[in-house]
Amino acid sequence: MSQFEEKQIERKEIYDGAVLHVVKDKVLLPNGEESIREFCLHKGAVAVIPIDNNDEVIMVRQFRYAHHREFLEIPAGKLDFIGEDPLDAAKRELSEETGAMAERITPLGILDTTPALIDEIIHLYMAEGLSFGNMHPDEDEFLEVVRYPLKDLVNMVMHGEIRDGKTQIAILKAAIIKKMI
Amino acid sequence: MSQFEEKQIERKEIYDGAVLHVVKDKVLLPNGEESIREFCLHKGAVAVIPIDNNDEVIMVRQFRYAHHREFLEIPAGKLDFIGEDPLDAAKRELSEETGAMAERITPLGILDTTPALIDEIIHLYMAEGLSFGNMHPDEDEFLEVVRYPLKDLVNMVMHGEIRDGKTQIAILKAAIIKKMI
Repeated sequence: MSQFEEKQIERKEIYDGAVLHVVKDKVLLPNGEESIREFCLHKGAVAVIPIDNNDEVIMVRQFRYAHHREFLEIPAGKLDFIGEDPLDAAKRELSEETGAMAERITPLGILDTTPALIDEIIHLYMAEGLSFGNMHPDEDEFLEVVRYPLKDLVNMVMHGEIRDGKTQIAILKAAIIKKMI
Repeated sequence: MSQFEEKQIERKEIYDGAVLHVVKDKVLLPNGEESIREFCLHKGAVAVIPIDNNDEVIMVRQFRYAHHREFLEIPAGKLDFIGEDPLDAAKRELSEETGAMAERITPLGILDTTPALIDEIIHLYMAEGLSFGNMHPDEDEFLEVVRYPLKDLVNMVMHGEIRDGKTQIAILKAAIIKKMI
């Protein structure tokens, strides 16, 4: 076990809402002192960068209320339940948000989004060999599907024009794997 | 303004703790319906990838209680107050966590960590031309400073061995800028 381990002494439930579950733990630090750790519990999520045969990426533009502006992101969503196969969830979110199905899906690793404040992890995938049906987003999800050349997206990431974390990582990893960087 | 804008109707304060500030807004959706948005407010943060003259990166290994395991990360920390110059904060965190000072600091853009759940943004920097004094981490911060060749870190990111978001992005961007990919 880690020499820096912080041991739980007690947990207080702070808030269990529709999407946020907040807890506050009293912990024992490595030096024997006590401290407090507040953080959010999360079921986990998936995100997938869908790349067509012309090396164009199917992106979604949507409003993110916490930042009060539109974001350009790869398709993504929460797991339906703890322990859901992330690959199943990735296929579902891809289909719901863009109408796409993929012949090939390659794992791009896992992303811990905000390790100090939330235990969320995002499973990242690259989807290729795409065919298209109808999109069917969630009821209170408003989004626009847009295509960008992967090459242009790399430049946008490098120039700070795409800020979403999962989207930056998926674009750079996909471009490196496809030897476009 | 965005066609997808969600307008605030009212805000309820849920929790204002030591590090988490949770609010719950009633919002007006683009279709005229109402919905609820729960999220965390955050002051913003900085992270810096310090690279020495041998292309080795000064990293920190620390325990992240929300995930209950050790993380290998670049030095990072919260802004001291809203509106603090992120470059000043980056120099402070670099010095506190690793004892390093930098001759050259290059912006690597901004990272939105978890746009659905928290308004946190991280200002990313690359620091070069390093000299070293004493590290002086915060009182309840326990960490180990370790060096890795940037080339090895790129491989670790591409093989899913480094999961922290800001760290993955900073490693890939720095390696691309330094033409090591």
